[in-house]
Amino acid sequence: MSKERLLPFAHLEANDDETTSCICFKSMRDRVSCFWNNSRDFSKKALEMGRNDPRKVIYAFKSGFALSFVSLLIFWKKPADVSQFSIWAMLTVIVMFEFSIGATIIKGFNRGLGTFCAGMLAFLFATLSLMAGDGEKVVIVISFFIIGSIASYLKLYPTMAPYEYGYRVFVLTYCILMVAGNRTREYTVAILSRLVLIAVGACICFIINICIYPIWSGDDLHRLVVNNFKELATSLEGCVNGYVKYVDYGSSTRFTTPQASDDQLYLGYKTVIESANREQTLLGFAVWEPPHGHYRTLRHPWKTYVKVSGAVRRCAYTIMALHGCILSEIQAPQEKRQVFRSQFQKVSAEGVKVLHEIASKIEKMEKLGANEHNILKEVHEAGEQLQKKIDERSFLLINSQSWEIKSQAKELEDLSNERDYENLKLGFKSLSETAIYIKSSLIMAPRLPNKDLPKHKLRKHVPWPSWISFEGVDGLIKEDEIKTYQSASALSLATFASLLIEFVARLQKVVDCFEELSEEAGFRDPDIVVLTESGGFWTRFFRCFRVKR
Amino acid sequence: MSKERLLPFAHLEANDDETTSCICFKSMRDRVSCFWNNSRDFSKKALEMGRNDPRKVIYAFKSGFALSFVSLLIFWKKPADVSQFSIWAMLTVIVMFEFSIGATIIKGFNRGLGTFCAGMLAFLFATLSLMAGDGEKVVIVISFFIIGSIASYLKLYPTMAPYEYGYRVFVLTYCILMVAGNRTREYTVAILSRLVLIAVGACICFIINICIYPIWSGDDLHRLVVNNFKELATSLEGCVNGYVKYVDYGSSTRFTTPQASDDQLYLGYKTVIESANREQTLLGFAVWEPPHGHYRTLRHPWKTYVKVSGAVRRCAYTIMALHGCILSEIQAPQEKRQVFRSQFQKVSAEGVKVLHEIASKIEKMEKLGANEHNILKEVHEAGEQLQKKIDERSFLLINSQSWEIKSQAKELEDLSNERDYENLKLGFKSLSETAIYIKSSLIMAPRLPNKDLPKHKLRKHVPWPSWISFEGVDGLIKEDEIKTYQSASALSLATFASLLIEFVARLQKVVDCFEELSEEAGFRDPDIVVLTESGGFWTRFFRCFRVKR
Repeated sequence: MSKERLLPFAHLEANDDETTSCICFKSMRDRVSCFWNNSRDFSKKALEMGRNDPRKVIYAFKSGFALSFVSLLIFWKKPADVSQFSIWAMLTVIVMFEFSIGATIIKGFNRGLGTFCAGMLAFLFATLSLMAGDGEKVVIVISFFIIGSIASYLKLYPTMAPYEYGYRVFVLTYCILMVAGNRTREYTVAILSRLVLIAVGACICFIINICIYPIWSGDDLHRLVVNNFKELATSLEGCVNGYVKYVDYGSSTRFTTPQASDDQLYLGYKTVIESANREQTLLGFAVWEPPHGHYRTLRHPWKTYVKVSGAVRRCAYTIMALHGCILSEIQAPQEKRQVFRSQFQKVSAEGVKVLHEIASKIEKMEKLGANEHNILKEVHEAGEQLQKKIDERSFLLINSQSWEIKSQAKELEDLSNERDYENLKLGFKSLSETAIYIKSSLIMAPRLPNKDLPKHKLRKHVPWPSWISFEGVDGLIKEDEIKTYQSASALSLATFASLLIEFVARLQKVVDCFEELSEEAGFRDPDIVVLTESGGFWTRFFRCFRVKR
Repeated sequence: MSKERLLPFAHLEANDDETTSCICFKSMRDRVSCFWNNSRDFSKKALEMGRNDPRKVIYAFKSGFALSFVSLLIFWKKPADVSQFSIWAMLTVIVMFEFSIGATIIKGFNRGLGTFCAGMLAFLFATLSLMAGDGEKVVIVISFFIIGSIASYLKLYPTMAPYEYGYRVFVLTYCILMVAGNRTREYTVAILSRLVLIAVGACICFIINICIYPIWSGDDLHRLVVNNFKELATSLEGCVNGYVKYVDYGSSTRFTTPQASDDQLYLGYKTVIESANREQTLLGFAVWEPPHGHYRTLRHPWKTYVKVSGAVRRCAYTIMALHGCILSEIQAPQEKRQVFRSQFQKVSAEGVKVLHEIASKIEKMEKLGANEHNILKEVHEAGEQLQKKIDERSFLLINSQSWEIKSQAKELEDLSNERDYENLKLGFKSLSETAIYIKSSLIMAPRLPNKDLPKHKLRKHVPWPSWISFEGVDGLIKEDEIKTYQSASALSLATFASLLIEFVARLQKVVDCFEELSEEAGFRDPDIVVLTESGGFWTRFFRCFRVKR
């Protein structure tokens, strides 16, 4: 591949750290300076991360505090020697202390379950090994083999991937219990004392994480959904503007130098499409969280937030296809794009308005007002106007010259049962004659990519279907095939329009999902002014400890 | 939302375990039977997993063997009491033992680095605490706070997400070293003895994992790329067949009952699109692996495999858009689809042929033969035929009735600088007259969804833009708006065709990438028959231990 193209969706696959880190394999000196540059970049970005989201700094301090608090246990030597088991409480804090409350609860639950199972198994095998007498060592080694094999096998099970870590902790716990028990020969004491210390560690985790500036996954999920709407709006606007303002950079330049605005439009739909996994993760955490802040119902419908985002994502796929039109191999001529300019922009503006309106509704947790129930009216009208314009100007989208009188007549005969042959034939004859005039006026603006390039360069730069057109005898351009390319390129305009209309059609689903959410989550009605601001028990409880951002 | 639609891309978001596990919150008895059913399902599937990929079973046994082998250290009490540090070697095995060789090497490297850093820091703070005299405890607690905070903060850094685990192991190692050192007051002995045991554990891991039936990430990556080609071919075929054979189930049924064939087509492009992450992971492992098996060069171009897959994915996005046409709100009538049937199927058949051919080439690690260099010839021809057919039948895609004589003339005047007004006007008059015939024959086959439903049901089932059409006074259908819907629906056929042509255009990139790969990876030339079958040192070395599957 001589030309390195920026694939339309390559960004979806690119590994971010690959592009930022400098990779060099030269001399030792280069390596050192390379390492130094990378470290400086890294620390800059790390500081910026904290400035953008101060919660991360707070989490780090909370985490350090929890660890140092629990480490006080190592100095507790009287009346009982707690210090020898203190590592267990510390291990629990290291394993369990997560960013959000929901995640901490889940991890704690998994840790508890894993430890309990490991404890039970340790008891079982300890008893067996003591019963075995001389075969004690054999029983212990076999138990390690069984536990290790089963845990390794089960963690490969596809749906168990998120718990891979849990399996490791489980095996580790089992090993430590067995080793400790084997050394002292007092399995019961060894196991029970460790279980108590694990419980102490877990309690400290919960108390510190919940009481000091709690960070909720639910908040994050809510914000993510709102953000998806905004990103999609940016993308839609960028996409339509990009298509309308299209400048022909020439085939290769167009792909290698993405404009800054282009990047924005990329990042928009890319964010929406890629947020699916993050949403699932946050949903998994949020459902475990008690009512808090604005979410006062016991079972807040977090799933419906994800559903709304799913509908938004469905629209994002259309935007991705629209962007595909901008970057596609086959391009519509600029003159023709201008014809539909105002309709495209109208649809885009109305679409953006709807998206922003719903986003702000979700952000404020408000229902649609009585006079907003037909929120899609304007965008639907804009869509219909676009459609009508296409109908009126559809001669621009096709190559009517090649309509075949005979086959066309036959076609319509097949479609219809009416037998007005004579009329048809007469009709089509005049149609095809007139088509010559249409063609003659369109041919004066043929947009063949890199038309000004010398012939020998064409083969390289112009992709199929255009370059095939230049494969004629001795590089002579076959007029027939130019026409094929021209009509393909005009048809790509129809694709753009059709996808835009599809986008408008898909907005209905977004509004439906939003209405479902606003019902289930009990969003407030903007027409009824509510003055009370009390909140449930948990809300008030947590608010006491909550530091205002 | 009354109707639960299966969104076209919902599968991309769906959480698999949600659909399979039975969720019930009823009585205790129900819960028990529910748990029992789930467990039975789980074990069935777990066994099936092993049957489908015996390497997983082998990995589990290897893992159990490594753990039990290293556990023998707990009985080593003379001459030195190794048993008290044995847990360290076990911990290393638990952390490091991975499915593939590449992953084990990376984990080992991370483990080594993390342990080294933790060891250095432990030395540093131990010295400080001993120097502090009375303030020893304060220094230790503060060191925990600092280490805990920094590690927690850095693991939140986006590109550090895969090493989250490494950070935890690092903190854990630091804690254990400090606690152990603090108890015995012999920090140096405590730290060094543990480092030696970690090295022993790591060696055992490497030896067992590499010598007994090694599992290579490179193999997996190779197979994944080949599989992507096959999945894409299935999807393409299914998509075009689905579009051509389209049966109108009615708006809602169509979405809620996906056909079995539909599912295949889904899974095809879904697999390709979702494989991006897995490819990156496998690539990360594969680049660490020494030459082995078929991959005899020292720096096998694993990145180029991923690049080929990226080009395939770019085609998959077009297939996704094509599938979007099948599931879209706006549908083209069946009669019109039939007109292009053979061309659609020709493109699909040729495309599938190309994909299968390249897949088999990559599988066999073969270059394109001398007479295969124009592998895309047939599919390009099929694409051009489709384009020509569209040109010939483009009157089916548009609503020429609404061509406005006046504006059309003006349009063309703007586009052209030639001033042959009289001709144009004459031309268009006859054109628009004839268009009436076209329209009259098309209107007899209007495909309004759920045409046979009673009027009051239409509002509910038919989405925009069709249902808007029925919003006329007292439910009367406005003829004007029906036309708009009809032409939108016909235009969607143009979208399908245009996307299919775009797919063909994108195949070029796939072939380019494949050729690049075949050069870089030194695929063999099918025209030259090679009889030698020797392999490098590593190949022969590993082959000795390799159990034939």
